[in-house]
Order: sequence, then structure tokens, then C-alpha cells
Amino acid sequence: MSTKSTELPFPVLPKTDQGKRICQIIRVKPERLDEYKKVHADVWPEVLGALRTAHVVDYSIHFFEPHNLLIAHMRYIGKDFDEDMKGIAQNEATQRWWKLTDGMQESFVPGAVGSASGPGWWSEAEEVFRMEG
Amino acid sequence: MSTKSTELPFPVLPKTDQGKRICQIIRVKPERLDEYKKVHADVWPEVLGALRTAHVVDYSIHFFEPHNLLIAHMRYIGKDFDEDMKGIAQNEATQRWWKLTDGMQESFVPGAVGSASGPGWWSEAEEVFRMEG
Repeated sequence: MSTKSTELPFPVLPKTDQGKRICQIIRVKPERLDEYKKVHADVWPEVLGALRTAHVVDYSIHFFEPHNLLIAHMRYIGKDFDEDMKGIAQNEATQRWWKLTDGMQESFVPGAVGSASGPGWWSEAEEVFRMEG
Repeated sequence: MSTKSTELPFPVLPKTDQGKRICQIIRVKPERLDEYKKVHADVWPEVLGALRTAHVVDYSIHFFEPHNLLIAHMRYIGKDFDEDMKGIAQNEATQRWWKLTDGMQESFVPGAVGSASGPGWWSEAEEVFRMEG
């Protein structure tokens, strides 16, 4: 029995554990944008540490001016998303970080009160296309 | 002279060639959204091939309903971005793909006429934060 693989007309990159990709959106108050950029140019190491411990990698935030949007994009490579997110929420530095940054943002989530509690703060955008590797 | 590395309070993941991260935005015509999702659930292999040949990896598109936005996110791991983008534009299947998908979208770029020519089609969002690994 032949197991010869199909030849594809383009190079296929080696597969890695790409994890779950997450895209989240929130509005930045335009008058706080400079401050938002400034604190993110020098994020507290403990906040990054809480993310890494929670198996969040390749985290980026982009700004889209026409709607004053912040667009977060990350990969989650752990096995228990809810538990890992709880770990982030329990991190003391992250709690202080959220107090600082929540005030620079406006949530699209109905009834949202902040990152720490309530129905959520960032909105999750729906994945409509994904190319691995 | 000691070269002992600083101990960090969190696991540091091995660095890889993360490349350039790109986040691009465009508006989808709401009445074409279902069609947009449908064609992206079954993208032509030649279109994916042109992206891979041009060193574009980890490509995702997310949909954000409140503003009917499509948010593309990708990494570029090549060495000559302009040349690689020219390669994509010269790919015949990609040209047909753009004819199909441009009609489902509205560009934020002033004077935009389509993906194939003019001042650009997708808008580039500005990176304001990045965590590697």
C-alpha cells in the first residue's frame, strides 16, 4: 500500500501547536490614547508573567483610529482556559493594572463594569478564517 | 565577570523568529457576510499557496459585529516584504480571489478602488503593544 503524500503546489510549513487564537475588541477613550500607549511601552513584568503562567502567548494590541478601537490578538496554548483565566484575575499586579487601564477604555459589552468582575470587558470577535503555518 | 542571568518570576518561553505582525481592517457589507464566511471556509489552495510562498504565516480573519469589521492578523517572516507582496499580487488565482472578495467589502482607505491597484484596500492598524512568546 502506497503512502506517498500528495504533492502540493506550495511549501507547507511544519505544524506547531498553534493553540486557540483569540481576538478581542474594546474602545479606547481618544483623550487617553497617548497614556495607554505609554503604559504599554513599559508593561509591568508581573502582568506579563501572569499571562505567560496562564499559557497566553504572542499577545499583540493594535489601534484602529477610525473607530478608536483597540484590537487584542493572542494565542492560548494551555489545556484549561477557564482555570487559567481565573489565575490571571487572581494576580494582584494584574488587578492593579486593570484598575489603571479600564479607565482608559469603554466596553461594548452590555452591563460591563470592568475587567475584574461582571459580564466581561473586552468583546470577543468571531473567527471567520484561519490559515495555519 | 559574572554572566548569571536574572531570575524572572515567570516562565520565559524560547524565542522563535516571530517576524513582523500585521493587523489590517476593512468593513464587510453586512448583506454579504454569510457569503464571505462561506468562501473563507473553503479557500482556494492556490490563494493559500501564494501567501505561504510570500512568507505570510498564521493568518486569521475575525469579524466584529458592532462595526461590521473584518480584522486580519498575520505574521510576515520573509526578508523583502514589498517584493513578496508583489508576488502575491501577480498570482493569477489571487487576482480572481480579490475580484470575488473585494465586492463584499468597503475600504476605509481614501480613494481605494480594490486590492489589485490604487492606494491600498485594507487599512493597517497601529501596533501599540506586543508580547513575544
